[in-house]
Parts: sequence; structure tokens; C-alpha cells
Amino acid sequence: MKKITILGSTGSIGTQALDVIRKNRDLFKIAALTAGKNKDLLLEQIKEFNPEVVAVAEEKDAEDIKRKVNHVEVLWGKEGINIAAKDSDSDLVLNALVGMMGLVPTYYAIQAGKDIALANKETLVSGGSIIMKAACDHNVRILPVDSEHSAVFQCLKGNDLKEIKRIILTASGGPFRGYSVEQLNNVALEDALKHPNWSMGRKITIDSATMMNKGLEVIEASWLFDIPCDKIDVTVHPQSIIHSMVEYKDGSIMAQLGVADMRIPIQYAFSFPRHLPNNLKTLDFYSVGDLTFEKPDKEVFKCLQLAYDAIKQGGSYPIVLNAANEVLVHLFLENKIKFLDIQNNINRIMEEHIPVYHTDLSIILEIDKEIREKVLRKCSLQ
Amino acid sequence: MKKITILGSTGSIGTQALDVIRKNRDLFKIAALTAGKNKDLLLEQIKEFNPEVVAVAEEKDAEDIKRKVNHVEVLWGKEGINIAAKDSDSDLVLNALVGMMGLVPTYYAIQAGKDIALANKETLVSGGSIIMKAACDHNVRILPVDSEHSAVFQCLKGNDLKEIKRIILTASGGPFRGYSVEQLNNVALEDALKHPNWSMGRKITIDSATMMNKGLEVIEASWLFDIPCDKIDVTVHPQSIIHSMVEYKDGSIMAQLGVADMRIPIQYAFSFPRHLPNNLKTLDFYSVGDLTFEKPDKEVFKCLQLAYDAIKQGGSYPIVLNAANEVLVHLFLENKIKFLDIQNNINRIMEEHIPVYHTDLSIILEIDKEIREKVLRKCSLQ
Repeated sequence: MKKITILGSTGSIGTQALDVIRKNRDLFKIAALTAGKNKDLLLEQIKEFNPEVVAVAEEKDAEDIKRKVNHVEVLWGKEGINIAAKDSDSDLVLNALVGMMGLVPTYYAIQAGKDIALANKETLVSGGSIIMKAACDHNVRILPVDSEHSAVFQCLKGNDLKEIKRIILTASGGPFRGYSVEQLNNVALEDALKHPNWSMGRKITIDSATMMNKGLEVIEASWLFDIPCDKIDVTVHPQSIIHSMVEYKDGSIMAQLGVADMRIPIQYAFSFPRHLPNNLKTLDFYSVGDLTFEKPDKEVFKCLQLAYDAIKQGGSYPIVLNAANEVLVHLFLENKIKFLDIQNNINRIMEEHIPVYHTDLSIILEIDKEIREKVLRKCSLQ
Repeated sequence: MKKITILGSTGSIGTQALDVIRKNRDLFKIAALTAGKNKDLLLEQIKEFNPEVVAVAEEKDAEDIKRKVNHVEVLWGKEGINIAAKDSDSDLVLNALVGMMGLVPTYYAIQAGKDIALANKETLVSGGSIIMKAACDHNVRILPVDSEHSAVFQCLKGNDLKEIKRIILTASGGPFRGYSVEQLNNVALEDALKHPNWSMGRKITIDSATMMNKGLEVIEASWLFDIPCDKIDVTVHPQSIIHSMVEYKDGSIMAQLGVADMRIPIQYAFSFPRHLPNNLKTLDFYSVGDLTFEKPDKEVFKCLQLAYDAIKQGGSYPIVLNAANEVLVHLFLENKIKFLDIQNNINRIMEEHIPVYHTDLSIILEIDKEIREKVLRKCSLQ
């Protein structure tokens, strides 16, 4: 019986992860759950999955939960989430948090020797150096949950990282595939929120529309598989059937395919190295239509190029890229800036950045905070 | 330094295998070569690769070779090929023979403890039971060379055979894809010899046109991966980019892709589990065009259905299927029968067959011989 803690249990990945656990009660058990403000859903989850510990964002929600359920320790705030991540009686921690807030609890969970199922790409984008070192020091596995990284991870199974010629991350291209800069200039929030293939949270959906999501994935893959970004290519594959590929030095290419259902990579991260049976819809090759491939347009979708630049320049650049992106995406989600303001502002902020090359957790958090404040300042001045 | 014996060194697979060795002289060395009647090419190969032993079909060719080269033991006939297979100082024997004649030397090589790189599907179609048992008894690896089986083999790497939901063999569909029975009725030999994607020997090219090749592959896969044929599907994929796939019980599908170059799977069989660098052309996703999938038409291309029937009925049926097919393909290649006579006659021969369920090498050879004689008799009476 594997004991699992879910950070972010009420979000898109969190609820799908609980669905996987619901269908595999003989194999998996919930140790702890953390949520933000969706107290009602968390209460239902507590009743169904009986965690020993839960944590929420606000003290008042914690108090309310305490009144309504017994036999569960209720924590709150960042400190509460950190405690749930590191001190709960779990073998594996699923980081399904959104954005940079995934970094600290993941770092602590690793130091407590827990394997990590990683659905939060910002953790490695900003904290790749400290996370991978901690994982190595504590002999902890980082199991990717993102469909692309899960695909690469599966394509690498049994193979030697040294024999990789390149990783090929596939990208749907998002709702604005094929658009020109002029066309992107006036796109509306509701159009950006319509992803053609995947149903996901709002932040990642906007990241898909800007292609920053793929850029963050390039950086994540670089850390996860210890490979330079010039060996990571992005191919637009609008059908999202091939989830990603690895080309080996002999020209042999391994690919992982499937329906667009995040429960498959979530389940695989939980059950690795096993492929557990499930009753999910399977791929029908006769109804998927043609599989096609296109070059991504990094001049129109600048975020992708900026992500390559950030990991290539190294040091604190990816922290800046990520922090600026998070704030700008939120401003766009609040209809305060236009779609292209996201990439244009990240570009500007990165150009102005004076990099730091030796980082630790506190330096990362400090740079992240500085950049967020700077972006907010700039955007409110505009 | 891995010492390799090639059975069938002057054929399509044999010459490509030597090209792989030519480019990896630091890793591979030829122990023995066997050929049929292409004495001149064999002489060149002897000079280039310095085998210790060679074998040819005819005694007079053997005498001629002895006069022209020193320092090489020259054998001849079936017995000569068997000796080269089992007694040469090799670690691995590549069976690149055409048809049923691959069975006996492979069986002896396994008994001598040599790993087998298997390019000859008839070996497992007719002798699956004795070959797989011998491989198990002698702790010998059977490494597939066929692009489809190499793909499946790579998709299985690091995974558990018990977790397979199904194997999906891809088929180009051959030159007559989409034809009706009426259209097949009058196809010419030269059209059947035009394979759309692969350059191969004549026998296998005709097998591709009838889709018997895919049928033989289903039977081979069933033996090789120890999986019942109802878990092996065939999907027509006209571009031959995806070489085959494995679907796992969680719905995750692994695929192996690449250019249509047999040197990739040959090299992988030689270097397994490593992916050695090479300078072969690699796949360009932006020029391959769309990847498509179609259901195979087993009513028009009856050979595929007959192969499923043969492995399902078991016992001696696959021997009959293969023996009848070999003779009929040769008759078609000699323009003595029509294209549809191949599948119609196999059907008839299989219907008339009284199966044997306990076979050993001599029984297999006896049934094979009987069926060949019967087919020849029937076809000369027509």
C-alpha cells in the first residue's frame, strides 16, 4: 500500500489524482491533502479518503474544517502546507500546486526522503538546481506527471540517457496556432482559455496559448533528464496523440501515445514502473484522423524562444522568466493586460535582469519576489 | 569485440548487416559468412571481412573459392551452413536466410549457445515451439531484426510482458492497398514487386503485396513475445514511419518510429541494449507528411486472416501456411500462377490439412516437405 500526499488536491490534477486513487484502493492510500480556498470540496475529499492531515490557505477555513470533521489534523498557511508535505506519513508526494508556490513544499518533501510525483513545472523551472541536487542527495525519485515528461520518461525506460540524440516535446500549438503577431494582438481572454485538446487549469491554459507552457517544459525536461536545451526540440503536433518522443543516436525514435487524459500519466507516476489496468477510454487509431507535425513559430510565440534563452543563459534567468510569466498571466486572466503584453513584458524584464549564478532556496525566493513586484509596478505604471 | 556469423550474407539483410559492421569495426567482427550462389559477392566479402569460415550452396563454388582465397575454411551444402552456424567462433548468429531454410541452422546455433539476431520470420512461423524452447533451455537471446519486431522489442524495454494490453503491428498495406478482389485478380508480377516504402528481397516483397508478410509477423510476434494472437492487432499505416507499437493496460502506447532503413534494427540487434551512433539519414517530421491509419481488409487480403487462423488453430497449421506460401510465391515469381492463386491455394491446403500437435524438428521438416510437394503437384495439375 503506497501512501500518497497530494499538494493541491482540489485542482484539476489533484481531483484527477484522487480519481486514480479511488479506483485503486487496494494499492494507494491518502496520507495528506492540501488545498487553497476550495474548502467545500476538500471537506468532501476528507470524508471520502480519510487523510491523517490536511492543510488549507486560511486559518478561518482550517477552523471551520476542524469543527466539521474529527480524526484529522488541520493545518493552515504556507507553513501548514510545508508540514503536510514533509511530515505526513507518506511514501510519495504529488505536487499538483499551481506556479512557484510548489517549490518550497517539494524541496522539504525531498529532504524528508519522499518520492515526488511532479505536476508543477515551475518547481523545476525556478528551482531545478536545488531540487535535482536534493533529490540526488536524498536518493529520491522525481516522477514526472506532465503528459510530455511522462512520455519522455516512458521512452527512456531501460535506455541510457547518454544515448539520447534529442528529446522531441510535442505541442498542440494551443488555440492560436498559425496566428500572426497582428492576429494575436487582439485575442480575447475567453478565446485563450479554449484549449483544443486538454482540459486544464486556467494558468496552464493561458501558458499553452502563449506557448510559454512548452518553454517551461523545455526547461523542466532539461533538469529532469539532465540534458542541454539544444538537444530538446519542440514540434507542433495539433492532435496531441503523440505526447512526446526521444530520438536515440542510432536514429531510432521512441514515442508515447494515448488519449488526452491526465489520469494516465498520474497513474503511471503512482504505479511506476508498473502499467496498472484501468477503464479509461483508449486510443482508436481509426478515429483519430491524420497525425501531423509543424515547426513552432518562435518569432510569433516569443515565450518559447524566451524560455530557451533563459535556460541557455542559466543562473537566475529561468526564475525571472517564470516569475514574470506568472504575474503577467494573472494580470491577463484579470483582463488587466493584453495577450501580447505577456511575452513583451517578459522579454523586457529578462533584458533588464542582472543574473545571479549561485542560487540557494532563499536567493531563488528573493529573486522571484523582486521580479513579481517589478512586473506589477511596471504594469500598473503603463 | 562481438563476433558475428551471418547466414545469408549476400542477400538484402546480409549486405546491410555487413554495412553496419563496416562502420563499427571496433565493436563487431565477422566470424563466418554463408551464401547461396552469389559466389562473386561472397569473395569480395571474404576479402573485406576476413571470416574464418564460409559456406556456400554448391561444392563447385566452394572449390572455386578455395582456389582464390587462403586462410578461410570453405564449406558447402546444408551441412556446411549448419556447421558455420554452430561451430564458428561467434557470439551471435544473424539469420538472414530466406524462407524455411533458416530453421535448421538457427536451431543448431541456439543449441551451441549463440545469441540469434533473427531476420527470417519463417524460422519462428514453422519452428516457434522448438526454437523458443531451445532458446530458453540454452539461455540464448532471440533478438528481432524485422523492423516491426524490433519496434515491439524496443517498446517492451524495461516493461513487463504481463502488462501488455495488445501489440499493434503496423503494415504499409503494400502496393495493392485498397484494391478489391477483382482488381487483385489481374495484377502483374512487376507491380507486386514495387513496394512503396521498403527495398527488400523478392520473396518478402511478394509477401508484402499479399499481406502474408504481416500474417507471418503476427505468428512470429506471438512466439517471440509469448502473447496470444488475439492480443496482436494489425493496423495499416501506409507511411511506414511508426514501425509498430505496444499498448499497455493503462492505455499508454509506446511506439518506435524512424526512417525505413533496415540498418537501424540490424544495428540494434547487434548492439542491444545500446543505441550506437551512426550516420544514417534521420527522420524529418516536417517532411514526412501526415501519418494515417486504416483497418486492414482481411477479406480481400486473405493471407492475413489465414495466418491468424493458423496460429489460432496451432499445431502444424503454421508450418502448412508457411510451406504452401513459399512454394506459391516462387511459382508466382516464375509467372506460373496468378497473384490470387497464392491465397486461394493456401486456403485450400489448410482446409485439407490434418493437424499434428506434437512436433519436433524432424516432424516439422517432414510436414514442410509434404506440403511443398503437394502444392507443386496441385499447381502443375491445374
